[in-house]
Amino acid sequence: MIGIREAGNIVTHQYCFSLGLSSVDRAGVLFYPELFRHAHDAFEAFMARLGHDLPGIFAAGDLHLPVVHAEGDYRLPLRHGESVSVSVTPGGVGDTSFTMDCVFTDSQGRTAATVRTVHVCIDPVSRKPTAVPAALREQLAACCQPDPGGPA
Amino acid sequence: MIGIREAGNIVTHQYCFSLGLSSVDRAGVLFYPELFRHAHDAFEAFMARLGHDLPGIFAAGDLHLPVVHAEGDYRLPLRHGESVSVSVTPGGVGDTSFTMDCVFTDSQGRTAATVRTVHVCIDPVSRKPTAVPAALREQLAACCQPDPGGPA
Amino acid sequence: MIGIREAGNIVTHQYCFSLGLSSVDRAGVLFYPELFRHAHDAFEAFMARLGHDLPGIFAAGDLHLPVVHAEGDYRLPLRHGESVSVSVTPGGVGDTSFTMDCVFTDSQGRTAATVRTVHVCIDPVSRKPTAVPAALREQLAACCQPDPGGPA
Amino acid sequence: MIGIREAGNIVTHQYCFSLGLSSVDRAGVLFYPELFRHAHDAFEAFMARLGHDLPGIFAAGDLHLPVVHAEGDYRLPLRHGESVSVSVTPGGVGDTSFTMDCVFTDSQGRTAATVRTVHVCIDPVSRKPTAVPAALREQLAACCQPDPGGPA
Repeated sequence: MIGIREAGNIVTHQYCFSLGLSSVDRAGVLFYPELFRHAHDAFEAFMARLGHDLPGIFAAGDLHLPVVHAEGDYRLPLRHGESVSVSVTPGGVGDTSFTMDCVFTDSQGRTAATVRTVHVCIDPVSRKPTAVPAALREQLAACCQPDPGGPA
Repeated sequence: MIGIREAGNIVTHQYCFSLGLSSVDRAGVLFYPELFRHAHDAFEAFMARLGHDLPGIFAAGDLHLPVVHAEGDYRLPLRHGESVSVSVTPGGVGDTSFTMDCVFTDSQGRTAATVRTVHVCIDPVSRKPTAVPAALREQLAACCQPDPGGPA
Repeated sequence: MIGIREAGNIVTHQYCFSLGLSSVDRAGVLFYPELFRHAHDAFEAFMARLGHDLPGIFAAGDLHLPVVHAEGDYRLPLRHGESVSVSVTPGGVGDTSFTMDCVFTDSQGRTAATVRTVHVCIDPVSRKPTAVPAALREQLAACCQPDPGGPA
Repeated sequence: MIGIREAGNIVTHQYCFSLGLSSVDRAGVLFYPELFRHAHDAFEAFMARLGHDLPGIFAAGDLHLPVVHAEGDYRLPLRHGESVSVSVTPGGVGDTSFTMDCVFTDSQGRTAATVRTVHVCIDPVSRKPTAVPAALREQLAACCQPDPGGPA
């Protein structure tokens, strides 16, 4: 599903890009670390859409959101010049961390790759895990819950 | 000017992106090598718009277009999260090389940075400079010439 | 253990680098996708040490080794300027694929991060999985097997 | 020349790396923006050798050293797997800025590329140019002056 749904619905943010020379290897296909770079760009766009200004949060320095786990699966080659679409959805929210899922779709609409990242909220003073901010938690939780209205 | 003009007019291609965490340094501003990465993305979009399929040219292997000179000037800091617009214009066409100019504009419409690159056409067999393909030459030359209709 | 052991011993290759500005984020710590970039550099050094010329293999075009799965765990922040050591060990060899494990150690000798990647051997003509070349398989298998000489 | 010379001599810092898959394009040669990334790594090593802790300076936040101009010339292709050596020398010191020159040498000892960067010292509070710190100025100036002892 594409776009932000209103109350009670799963929220998915769609982010698109063209796979440039900077992201491919000698075989003309995605150089695998670049998948995570694009996943982060998509995550930043997702957070902005929810109203969370990550650049501002970084600048203020009152919350760190380091990634503690990242994994990617590569099912189909993504080729130089390909128009790629990324759907971003929260995968779960814990007390001090949350999970994000990205699905990368190629120009034929096939799932070419997936990325899962786990982000922990860190208090920059104590450098220890701290609670996910309430507003963010609610939004992420709302995005995670399955659509109650039907079989989806 | 934004967009492709018809016959007799200067062609400028506009390419936009949001400055992600992947492109900024510890001070939260553009890490300078990243300017060239974005310039190349903009160049690829420009070529595609002219109808030149760079990925296909690379795959066919019948022409190399290495950059032999690149320079960038950084006038204003580009900050994390900034919406950046890049205008791409050919700066000149020689027998075996051509020049591209990129102007990076910040979200307030100010020129924040410029990039100039010189690309040489190389025959992949002889590994020596070869003529700019005629179709590409004509298009680039048309883009370079000043608007004959007036004082711009 | 550091270095290549002879027959019957586990082989670990050690790769070192200093964490530059190009690899850190606004907080001055490793930008997470960069971990995979450094893991690939370490993998290339490992393969060279085993006598496998990856650049030559790529140039010859007779074998592709795409990564089909990659995961990283980030336990401690790696900071700008830190001297990082990476140990590279094969984690297993299958018919058409193999696994590589990287352990990133900070300047105090603590495990700061780990990366696991799964590489598949692809026949570039059929684009289907093909057997791991015999010489590579033997070497990787030798590296994987536990030291028979004792309790490790 | 390789190594740091004592009083009255030109100082050149030598930095070496192997050109990994992460830095090459589809043709198996250096992707041009990567030249600047490696130049920055070499610059950081040079500063550390002079005793200037760039990561500490960044962390303290009492001086910014943004690049305001960067240019690169690419004379010979640098290929995947190539052992590259970079010599770093200051090219000049002004009141509020200084210039750095990097020469990239391939495994056959030929000059393959050069990079020149101009760094400006910025006061992080006023955000205006400020004097190059005295200790750094003296060191850079000492490195710039030609060897008085002879024709080199």
